[in-house]
Amino acid sequence: MKKLDEKKIIDIFQRKLGNKKFISEDVEKFTLGKTKIIAKTDTMVQSTDIPQKMGLLDAARKSVIACVSDFASKGVKPEYGIISINIPKSISTKEINNIANGFKKACKEYEISIVGGDTNEGKEIVFNVCIFGKSDRIVTRKGSNKGDLIFTTGPFGYTSLGLEILLGNNKKINNLIKKSVKSVINPKPRLDYGLKNKRYFSSSMDSSDGLSTTLNEMSKQSKKKFVINKIPINRDLENYFKKHNRDFNSAIFHGGEEYEFVFTIPSKYRKIIIKNSILLKTPIIEIGYVELGKGVFIQNQNEEFKLKDLGWKHFK
Amino acid sequence: MKKLDEKKIIDIFQRKLGNKKFISEDVEKFTLGKTKIIAKTDTMVQSTDIPQKMGLLDAARKSVIACVSDFASKGVKPEYGIISINIPKSISTKEINNIANGFKKACKEYEISIVGGDTNEGKEIVFNVCIFGKSDRIVTRKGSNKGDLIFTTGPFGYTSLGLEILLGNNKKINNLIKKSVKSVINPKPRLDYGLKNKRYFSSSMDSSDGLSTTLNEMSKQSKKKFVINKIPINRDLENYFKKHNRDFNSAIFHGGEEYEFVFTIPSKYRKIIIKNSILLKTPIIEIGYVELGKGVFIQNQNEEFKLKDLGWKHFK
Repeated sequence: MKKLDEKKIIDIFQRKLGNKKFISEDVEKFTLGKTKIIAKTDTMVQSTDIPQKMGLLDAARKSVIACVSDFASKGVKPEYGIISINIPKSISTKEINNIANGFKKACKEYEISIVGGDTNEGKEIVFNVCIFGKSDRIVTRKGSNKGDLIFTTGPFGYTSLGLEILLGNNKKINNLIKKSVKSVINPKPRLDYGLKNKRYFSSSMDSSDGLSTTLNEMSKQSKKKFVINKIPINRDLENYFKKHNRDFNSAIFHGGEEYEFVFTIPSKYRKIIIKNSILLKTPIIEIGYVELGKGVFIQNQNEEFKLKDLGWKHFK
Repeated sequence: MKKLDEKKIIDIFQRKLGNKKFISEDVEKFTLGKTKIIAKTDTMVQSTDIPQKMGLLDAARKSVIACVSDFASKGVKPEYGIISINIPKSISTKEINNIANGFKKACKEYEISIVGGDTNEGKEIVFNVCIFGKSDRIVTRKGSNKGDLIFTTGPFGYTSLGLEILLGNNKKINNLIKKSVKSVINPKPRLDYGLKNKRYFSSSMDSSDGLSTTLNEMSKQSKKKFVINKIPINRDLENYFKKHNRDFNSAIFHGGEEYEFVFTIPSKYRKIIIKNSILLKTPIIEIGYVELGKGVFIQNQNEEFKLKDLGWKHFK
């Protein structure tokens, strides 16, 4: 989840561990026997990833969900999981039960069998989840072409507001607030949509580090220009920000933790993927298109503004 | 590494996560495609597993080694690894380099390719390692039969003395002290020996939770009596304990962290496994035999004493 300044630290690990031609991808791949295995690990740390008002059941569930989200973006079905937890000595049986129920819930929702793990004593709660599946081919982050259309699997921005509410003292409860808090504590990656539509995707990436980070990474890896002509925000959230005289771009593009994904398709697949979005009740949003060039730009009337990568920049 | 009271906590997780017929084993198994995958995860936590005098390079290396040790006991070759680390904000580049070098060292020694992982901010250092291999069959903990011979892959007890020295203020340096400290900071699981001899083993188990725990678990799973007629202690360590008027049984049987393994064989394989121990320079020690009955007993002259399971009992 919250990561250190990756540029520096990951560089050191990559150099030392000899992965020279490293291309950043949502999942890990390795072959054992004749099987191409896909794996994803994610760590949730109490002091940096779990707001105090978030229960342990939701936190444990979300630690699995974070991995599922990456599998969803690549169109790979998770099959097995290994869970390691650190818990402080002071933990209660009730809390252990909540944690176990959270893992159980996520595994039931996404049909994952837990095959093992370990339990350790530590100063703070840490959930480390690793999930496994198989796939002969995954959609990469780098495959988009000129003329492709860019989509997201859902609206953005609720998590930023939700986190603000969870971390603050807001006492007001209305539908928007409920929805925003729920987006943080109960995210639902669009696994079905990824599984059923990956054949149409030219590229894809999980968006949980923030939409601006995702779009910039996909643009960079594809060596193409991404033009965004529609902001994926719902009316209720837009009205909220306008009413409070606040700019919503930061929430939409730089918040992160949406656990949606971004994908590009050749325009000929527009009809079928929209049809599938209705069938699977996944509210996909067409946000722009791919051009020759580089960088990510937001098109507003006749002007273009460069969208910088300002997602999880970790350890400011 | 150091684990909570497992009876209670693991029971909750097993009940919730639906693994009803759970049999404790050194490694996890699952099938993807046609490949039977073997996995092992281990977590090393700074506050409970890393003595202050142990460097981060050795600690990082050991976090991989702990997993390799389980693979060694089952005769499975590790091929890939995923590493997750938590590090506090205050960590230095030098420390990051030490950590990366420790992982690199272990991976080079045991020919493991790291395929990914993640880096997170946390209150204390945590290394979570998961390694992968494949095997159609593993040696279980439960396969021993009446008349089988019981062996360990090395002498026990050095780690207990080594840990005592690392945690204390001992200023004296002699060969035994060096050897004992080295046994803690630089354990070397007998992977080659496990790989080349597993066909002869009727059962086996990694001993890092303590020899008494290992023997009791193997006896219990096999529903056989284990009779120990030779204590796997080297002369130098035995002399040290005698000189200081200390009982060495606790160090030998209940210390743990040796990263050796215990195995049983039908007696007809005695010659070949001893021959292989010379070839592979692995000092195996025959410590007893398997009988009908239950429990683990130390045979001393004509008397037998029950050996209780007093290894890592976690969270006293």
